[in-house]
Amino acid sequence: MSDYAAPIADMRFALDEIAGLGALARLGAYAQVTPDLVDAVLEGAATLAGEGLAPLNRSGDVEGCVLENGVVRTPNGFKDAYARYVEGGWNAIACDEDMGGQGLPRALATAVAEMWSSANMSFALCPMLTLSAVDLLGAYGTAEQKRLYLAKLASGEWTGAMNLTEPQAGSDLGALRARAVPDGDHFRVTGQKIFITYGEHDFTPNIVHLVLARLPDAPAGSQGISLFLVPKFLVGSDGSLGARNDVRCVSLEHKLGIHASPTCVMAFGDNGGATGWLVGEPHRGLHAMFTMMNRARLDVGLQGVAIAERAYQQARAFARTRVQGRPAGAAEDGAPILHHPDVKRMLLAMRASSEAARALAIYVAGETDRARHEPDADARARAQRRVDLLIPVVKAWSTEVGLEAASTNIQVHGGMGFIEETGAAQHFRDARIALIYEGTNGIQANDLVGRKLARDRGAAVRELVAEMEACGRELAAAGSEVAVLGASFAAAVAALAAASAALGDLHARDPAQALAGSAPYLKLTGVVAGGWLMARSALAAERRLARGEGDARFCRAKIATARFFAEHVLATAPALVPAILGGATVTGFDLELL
Amino acid sequence: MSDYAAPIADMRFALDEIAGLGALARLGAYAQVTPDLVDAVLEGAATLAGEGLAPLNRSGDVEGCVLENGVVRTPNGFKDAYARYVEGGWNAIACDEDMGGQGLPRALATAVAEMWSSANMSFALCPMLTLSAVDLLGAYGTAEQKRLYLAKLASGEWTGAMNLTEPQAGSDLGALRARAVPDGDHFRVTGQKIFITYGEHDFTPNIVHLVLARLPDAPAGSQGISLFLVPKFLVGSDGSLGARNDVRCVSLEHKLGIHASPTCVMAFGDNGGATGWLVGEPHRGLHAMFTMMNRARLDVGLQGVAIAERAYQQARAFARTRVQGRPAGAAEDGAPILHHPDVKRMLLAMRASSEAARALAIYVAGETDRARHEPDADARARAQRRVDLLIPVVKAWSTEVGLEAASTNIQVHGGMGFIEETGAAQHFRDARIALIYEGTNGIQANDLVGRKLARDRGAAVRELVAEMEACGRELAAAGSEVAVLGASFAAAVAALAAASAALGDLHARDPAQALAGSAPYLKLTGVVAGGWLMARSALAAERRLARGEGDARFCRAKIATARFFAEHVLATAPALVPAILGGATVTGFDLELL
Repeated sequence: MSDYAAPIADMRFALDEIAGLGALARLGAYAQVTPDLVDAVLEGAATLAGEGLAPLNRSGDVEGCVLENGVVRTPNGFKDAYARYVEGGWNAIACDEDMGGQGLPRALATAVAEMWSSANMSFALCPMLTLSAVDLLGAYGTAEQKRLYLAKLASGEWTGAMNLTEPQAGSDLGALRARAVPDGDHFRVTGQKIFITYGEHDFTPNIVHLVLARLPDAPAGSQGISLFLVPKFLVGSDGSLGARNDVRCVSLEHKLGIHASPTCVMAFGDNGGATGWLVGEPHRGLHAMFTMMNRARLDVGLQGVAIAERAYQQARAFARTRVQGRPAGAAEDGAPILHHPDVKRMLLAMRASSEAARALAIYVAGETDRARHEPDADARARAQRRVDLLIPVVKAWSTEVGLEAASTNIQVHGGMGFIEETGAAQHFRDARIALIYEGTNGIQANDLVGRKLARDRGAAVRELVAEMEACGRELAAAGSEVAVLGASFAAAVAALAAASAALGDLHARDPAQALAGSAPYLKLTGVVAGGWLMARSALAAERRLARGEGDARFCRAKIATARFFAEHVLATAPALVPAILGGATVTGFDLELL
Repeated sequence: MSDYAAPIADMRFALDEIAGLGALARLGAYAQVTPDLVDAVLEGAATLAGEGLAPLNRSGDVEGCVLENGVVRTPNGFKDAYARYVEGGWNAIACDEDMGGQGLPRALATAVAEMWSSANMSFALCPMLTLSAVDLLGAYGTAEQKRLYLAKLASGEWTGAMNLTEPQAGSDLGALRARAVPDGDHFRVTGQKIFITYGEHDFTPNIVHLVLARLPDAPAGSQGISLFLVPKFLVGSDGSLGARNDVRCVSLEHKLGIHASPTCVMAFGDNGGATGWLVGEPHRGLHAMFTMMNRARLDVGLQGVAIAERAYQQARAFARTRVQGRPAGAAEDGAPILHHPDVKRMLLAMRASSEAARALAIYVAGETDRARHEPDADARARAQRRVDLLIPVVKAWSTEVGLEAASTNIQVHGGMGFIEETGAAQHFRDARIALIYEGTNGIQANDLVGRKLARDRGAAVRELVAEMEACGRELAAAGSEVAVLGASFAAAVAALAAASAALGDLHARDPAQALAGSAPYLKLTGVVAGGWLMARSALAAERRLARGEGDARFCRAKIATARFFAEHVLATAPALVPAILGGATVTGFDLELL
């Protein structure tokens, strides 16, 4: 029996009530998305995740990956699981049909991707990066590049790897030094890249590296970076595999977590230069990278949701069986610890935050679908504004939710949680990376304030706040079980509105001070957005109960969970404002005194 | 060069201004505590911690402990470091003089103990547990037991181990099953104990186990548990070591962190019964354990302070040298990341919380000294009330501060933080256990509400709140740099007062609901207590500046740090009240829906 069961009911609820999957399906592009299809996709993915991937999670952590003579051996079972994943057609469910995909909405694919990461975060990183490569090549590849690579990447027959970071160029890609010199119809790429996830592995016969490097005539800094395609094996014009390219994995990192995911140091061109092809325009490599940034950041935020859900399920299972002490109000000893009020509080905290973060991820994914396929240009632009605003929030807030839940899972287990065999520690170790990669959470906060808030002078936030205020009016008119959320929600939305206006003004006067408040501002935005979607969920649950639709138990639990979120999380929102606007305390602190 | 330098200036400041070491020294018991002695103690400990223990921290994590044929081998260098620690007389600095100690105040010993845990948390656990054994034997041992064991434990020549937990008896010690049957002048002890820190090691020729077990006629539950002394080697009446006792380490746990600290499964009596002696009264073993509980919980809370400080120092050092990107307001690239506002914010968050938690630990330690040695009985009782109230807060809040800072340290390092070689990950792994052992943080919260708040109907909290309000009046009258703290402080103290009264009432009506709010209540108490001591520190710093006393740079930094704490931490206090008083949402949640 698997110890992970995908939360299909909650996913389905969020898809229907938060992402509006029904309305999405009425858009021309998603006419095939019937309720039966959605159920079949969710159930099929849940089976593979629960039975195929989750059982490999702990063994993968223990075994890790091994590098021998440039060959990376993944843990037992991973290669077979990957084959099963590809055979099931899972990699391409949201890829366009012209590359062999099923063209399903991103909202639905987001629910499915959560399952992969819950079941086995290390495994799921491989498809995640491949799909980023699909985005990049789909947008910037030549017709020939697409013909040779795109369908194989979309299906997962080959995988993609993103080669960005160098030791001196982490968050600051402008500092990178890898070079590419023209050589006939292609380029010779040289340099060393670090932190390359699945840069080498044994899943597939070929790996397609997308590599940032500088052309000989490149200007310094971030404006002089180009993007190259460097396959592990050269590919003939008939698609056959040819010579081994001059790219090798020279070491694997010893990491805190995600041990089953090989984090590679890649050497390009140690024997004269790796053969590569330019993707997109010269010097426009970073610009091209932005193409896949929103997707990748949504995917990483989703890892936070996924770990929170897995941690919640593990903690709940333990708390249902572990017997210790006499809970307050109980007549005698011998009850499972679930009955202790503080343990129950911890479980509800994990549940509430994972549901809120899931709703946010699925909501934003649905907006990406609308941004592509709404027939009306204004509606597309509006959806895109919402996506751009909330992507850094999904990435940073949800990964913090995931880490917090993983930590709480250890706490529920007590001493057993600190013992590696229990498995709780692994989720805690794995969860930590998601706050760092794909743009650190600090960079997300800077993006939210410095770009998203400042660039349009708060217009996108005001648009969101107006929708939240409308929800607040619905709450006020709702039944008493739901209306109780109204006061904390109204205060939180007012705090978001006021903080956004004041922080925008501050940014115009003193960008450094505003950025010093960006992390608490991002937290405020996440908390209020999560509270908004929990409030909308509670309203929807109340409507279903009133109509006698759906699962009444589920609806009652949703309303109670929303109330917990309001008291424990949303209520804290207004208190973040002094930190958000207190940037002068940070920037004014004498560095010599630190 | 060591990568840890003990924060002597801040420790000295907290000792003088928060614990009132000068007044303590005027108590008869501490007449020897001159300023010169304090400096010598702090500087001597800082040298051993920085040069002797800190360099072994990472190697100890990597090597871990090894069990072979019942013998535990600690990592290279640990045995020698322990010998140096004992030779320096460090173990006994706060032990009474009649057992060979120096009888220094606990407040001073607390600063010193922070250094050991900052330098090497795994190492420091061994003396921590030995000193708990000293407390227990000192309070309950017979004259003969004291004669044979006490001086050797106080000096550290032998170590002590606390054998409490069994697989079915963790937080609920009433469920334990180990047995002890009378056999002449001693007992035969049988049973298995788990999670025994330093239950076996190679530091010293003997280990003194204190073991909880049941006598044959013991009542069920927690009222039928007795305490036994079981030495690894039997001790002759002349103090010589005799036969090996029937107690063995049968396995070591594979843990998330503190790898250099052996966490043992101990088997007592596999060959007929371990020879043990009753300590204290039959069936009063748990009562005896309470003797050392306050000390042990203070020590564990101090581990949180220690990790926060070490993490802060590591993050600061990295941020001063790592160059990435162009900070807001900077003219060009190439500045260390310390100049990025969000990185600076992270450093200040670590600094502010570690200083606040340090002040709280040293304050409470000073109150334990007063509770022992104030000449006036009322003053002693008042100090003891303060200690009893705040001990669960020191334990739980400070360990959460420590984990948070360790996590932030990883974040400051970015991708490098996730690589084990960096060492940041170790602090994060090590820090996690402190929220669990010595009573989980949930148990601390239950203790704070169910015992400390409910038992005296809030009297001890009101006494504390009254002192805080007096401090608030001082703030209002202070210079503008410090007075700015007044508003958030006043609101926070008011929230603590109101929440305490309401939660006490709730506990009288519905204990389960009150306990469901106990964790956020403990957090509120920690935040407000930390804010109080930071405010007092800022006032003291302002006084020193006005008088031209001391280090003006230190005083200015203290005031600025207090301001940061007020905006980023203290300001959040009132927002915790809905969760504190929202227990009905937790207890009312249908368990079937969870």
